Amino acid sequence: MTADLQAISLRRRAVQAAMGQIPFDRLLKHARLIDMVTGEIRRVDIGLIGPMIASVHPCSEDFAALETLELAEAYLSPGLIDTHVHVESSHLPAHRYAQIVVAQGTTTIYWDPHELANVLGVAGVRYAVDSSRNLPLRVICAAPSSVPSTPGLETSGADFRGKEMQTMLEWPEIAGVAEMMDMHGVINGSERMLEILAAGLRSGKLIEGHARGLKGQELQAYLAAGVGSDHELTSADDALEKLRAGLNLQIRGSHPYLLPDIVNVLKTLPHLSSQITLCTDDVPPDFLLARGGMIALVNTLIDCGLRAEDVLRMATFNAALRLQRADLGLIAAGRTADFFTFDSLEKIQPQKVFVAGMCVADQGSMLAAEIEPEEALQPPRDTMHLSPVTESDFQLKIPGIQHGQAKLRHIKGARFTQWSETMVEVRDEVAQLPDGFSLIWVQHRHGKYPATPQMALLEGWGELRGAIATSYSHDSHNLVVLGRNPADMAIAANHLIACGGGMALSQNETLLASVEMPIAGMLSDLPTKLLAEQFNNLREKSALIADWEPPYRVFKAIEGTCLACNAGPHLTDLGLTDGATRQIIDPLVDAWEVTVS
Amino acid sequence: MTADLQAISLRRRAVQAAMGQIPFDRLLKHARLIDMVTGEIRRVDIGLIGPMIASVHPCSEDFAALETLELAEAYLSPGLIDTHVHVESSHLPAHRYAQIVVAQGTTTIYWDPHELANVLGVAGVRYAVDSSRNLPLRVICAAPSSVPSTPGLETSGADFRGKEMQTMLEWPEIAGVAEMMDMHGVINGSERMLEILAAGLRSGKLIEGHARGLKGQELQAYLAAGVGSDHELTSADDALEKLRAGLNLQIRGSHPYLLPDIVNVLKTLPHLSSQITLCTDDVPPDFLLARGGMIALVNTLIDCGLRAEDVLRMATFNAALRLQRADLGLIAAGRTADFFTFDSLEKIQPQKVFVAGMCVADQGSMLAAEIEPEEALQPPRDTMHLSPVTESDFQLKIPGIQHGQAKLRHIKGARFTQWSETMVEVRDEVAQLPDGFSLIWVQHRHGKYPATPQMALLEGWGELRGAIATSYSHDSHNLVVLGRNPADMAIAANHLIACGGGMALSQNETLLASVEMPIAGMLSDLPTKLLAEQFNNLREKSALIADWEPPYRVFKAIEGTCLACNAGPHLTDLGLTDGATRQIIDPLVDAWEVTVS
Repeated sequence: MTADLQAISLRRRAVQAAMGQIPFDRLLKHARLIDMVTGEIRRVDIGLIGPMIASVHPCSEDFAALETLELAEAYLSPGLIDTHVHVESSHLPAHRYAQIVVAQGTTTIYWDPHELANVLGVAGVRYAVDSSRNLPLRVICAAPSSVPSTPGLETSGADFRGKEMQTMLEWPEIAGVAEMMDMHGVINGSERMLEILAAGLRSGKLIEGHARGLKGQELQAYLAAGVGSDHELTSADDALEKLRAGLNLQIRGSHPYLLPDIVNVLKTLPHLSSQITLCTDDVPPDFLLARGGMIALVNTLIDCGLRAEDVLRMATFNAALRLQRADLGLIAAGRTADFFTFDSLEKIQPQKVFVAGMCVADQGSMLAAEIEPEEALQPPRDTMHLSPVTESDFQLKIPGIQHGQAKLRHIKGARFTQWSETMVEVRDEVAQLPDGFSLIWVQHRHGKYPATPQMALLEGWGELRGAIATSYSHDSHNLVVLGRNPADMAIAANHLIACGGGMALSQNETLLASVEMPIAGMLSDLPTKLLAEQFNNLREKSALIADWEPPYRVFKAIEGTCLACNAGPHLTDLGLTDGATRQIIDPLVDAWEVTVS
Repeated sequence: MTADLQAISLRRRAVQAAMGQIPFDRLLKHARLIDMVTGEIRRVDIGLIGPMIASVHPCSEDFAALETLELAEAYLSPGLIDTHVHVESSHLPAHRYAQIVVAQGTTTIYWDPHELANVLGVAGVRYAVDSSRNLPLRVICAAPSSVPSTPGLETSGADFRGKEMQTMLEWPEIAGVAEMMDMHGVINGSERMLEILAAGLRSGKLIEGHARGLKGQELQAYLAAGVGSDHELTSADDALEKLRAGLNLQIRGSHPYLLPDIVNVLKTLPHLSSQITLCTDDVPPDFLLARGGMIALVNTLIDCGLRAEDVLRMATFNAALRLQRADLGLIAAGRTADFFTFDSLEKIQPQKVFVAGMCVADQGSMLAAEIEPEEALQPPRDTMHLSPVTESDFQLKIPGIQHGQAKLRHIKGARFTQWSETMVEVRDEVAQLPDGFSLIWVQHRHGKYPATPQMALLEGWGELRGAIATSYSHDSHNLVVLGRNPADMAIAANHLIACGGGMALSQNETLLASVEMPIAGMLSDLPTKLLAEQFNNLREKSALIADWEPPYRVFKAIEGTCLACNAGPHLTDLGLTDGATRQIIDPLVDAWEVTVS
């Protein structure tokens, strides 16, 4: 419960107003309430006192109010609650993120500041918590569990064990342990994950899962460890097995192609469980602005054939149950006055959005001017701990071979990667990129050790016509560059090193586009609209460089290309990793001189 | 979460067993699992490690176990969870109560030790908590909020305000504030109830309601105060209004005549909400033994037309949601192994009952010998702070009238009482009971002040042929005697004063039957079966004394006849009270001498 609703003076006023003894602060008249409990749509008036609902009663002229608002038969739903999100993927600081999603009907998020933590450690989580205060969005934070996600296979900016987890769980703003991405460590009992689990279990707070691809014995083992939820759904069968297993099923919007099948399987079940909630996970800024976060997912699920009332229950009341927040998720006396109006059950478009009793948005826009972050807040900058690079840093060296050949292991595929091998020519100790291949390059950027670049051949992306660089690369957020031309790669990398991080494209030895993200190398200082334009421009321009899939997928692939916790080969700051064996593999199989005849 | 499941070593073993790396401690084979999430019935095996479920998987021969139990296609449900009970109404100490209800499939109760608190104050709640340890029943305690229930209209053995509430809420065994019976104080903002509410809101724990008869503005006001649940359902309309209002609807078994209508109204709703749970509230010992507690309610609801799967979900998973216990209510890896087997969905008869992974009951009986209470536990005795009474104590005095008449206010009706007035003859300052009337007599028994008996005329019970006395009388549990003959009344009262409390019947100046309850004047030392026999005997014999309704109702009426928090007139230790005006009313309207001609 928020401190707000604990005040007995507020409660007393609400009781008096409900009894008609004093006027409501605000009275909303003639709403069509979506009743999340009974599934009915009921005509009601709603009286508010401060941030709280004091009364939900049949439409009546018997109550007085300081302010009356005619809703004229508009539908009314509790505010949407996002049960799992990394705000960092919007590249917006929390106050700007809030402005976008609140106008879309989202009033509460459960933020896992996993990306900030991987750059800045506990201080990054503290920044997330501090930057979440006094916003029109209710932000509940989780304590990142996987810093780094794949210990031993990558180095991020910090290293969380039990002690760090305990520290964060003691903060009242932290409601639980965030997604346990190191599934391998959880199931195999790594010392680190046991420490983190122990701290989580002791705290009695939530423990969130990341059960990607887990099934059968591994899935049961993951639950036995204490994990309570999952958002990493990969198919309808996967969703059904996880629901049956007892996980809170967090249907996410970032993989919409899965949703029709998931909806179909849910509709075959005798009971539509309160264990189903909705989340966004990762949404880039232009999509967040144009299509929306939670609201896009809600409408997609309605399009897939679920009743609007049922989808909204998942997005509101069920989420409050999951988060054990009896003050949220329902338009009922005694709960927080977070809700929004809309006009059609076919496509839900939030109109007026109320947060803690105040109308803060209308018709998709916030009513107030831009929210300013708190003055005392110092966003973390200067996190690119790297010196400028040169072209020669982008040469894949095969030491000792002047003119010869090398057999190299490489990464095949852009999103679901596989191992492969290829023969390359070597000249003056430098491997020559074969036709149709590109290069991936990763350098540690957190200053934890003298950074040596790692490189590997990429098959399946075609020949990149330039370079793509990013300091936002899950989960360690080292500096990643993809390309063929060392000059282009150096230009993009140096731009990010100079500006404090972000994303950049280069071509023909010129910077083609960039988005600067000087806060932790992942958040922008730009106004949202400008950021979204720049981001969209960058994404569209990536099509000039890469042929693989439409630009949307290019970007998802780049952000995920170092995700060493997943199956298959991935390049990290420590080298070429194998997700199955959890080993670092030398890309060089063999190399030999070839005498030129 | 119980301390049990927080141990990382236990979790580690469970993970290893789920992975097939070590044997399960116990393996239950070939169950038909009632899946509380999906509503399906699934064939599974269940592997346990210690008190925890480690794996729920398709039937398989691939797992080893130290002990294997063949369930032979028996159904399996999570253990029943009673969301609101006063154990005291069984007149059994907790360890004996546990033996009865666990064998009936109840594995968790949320106990409001309201009656013990009204006799003994915080020490009574402490006794409840201490007597709940190390039982096969998981007992979660609530902090009684209404001691006394109707301040100013009655005196109980203690007086709880904010300080006492805060003390109890700081105990880890206390999960919330128990039913706020003083609805009037909550709605009208009495200083006492505001202090208690403030302590509850500050704690962030549950706040339970008692919304008897509340509707419209009063119901909304009661929710606005912070109350989250109600079990005082009086009709289907009442239940529907409360469900819509946002209360957790605790359907109770003690008023079964309401259930068909409530089920019918629930079936008309578009959604069967997770907000519906089940509770027993008050069950006397003979009914508990013969018909059962939660299990009787479950079967009644099935008889009323709900699907067994839906009723069981209310009694298990929904209850765990309400109590915010993510470790209970579901047969899933990582949760507590509390469940029971049964053979038919038409009438559920628990066979094997497992608590924390151990089979503790089979075929309706506990497997172990009688549980002994902990040695250190000192049940509170000697709580009848009264000297013996005499016949003259049972005379309704009209001072100053030697031969005359008096007009007296009296209580009309046995359960839903109304005010009425009658003329009586007065001889030697003593009112003569008119034909068809009886007398109710209440004396403070907690030693808080020198006890003066209170008396009033009763209409609607007929002429009692003897006396009925009890020290268990909601909510202040003073000594209550009903009768016509002062000699009989004194015999019954003196028996209870001498034996430490309980219930007694007398007739023809002889003790007819009694049940001694020397612990707090409400709990028996007898073995359950003997207590139930004595209680049943007492109840049956009450028909020799009273004509009003069958004996069951007589006893409900007697236990509730001093319930001053309800509407209508009630006699308490302070006098004749009015539930509507919250005043104490002098029964004497007028009195005058009549000259005998």
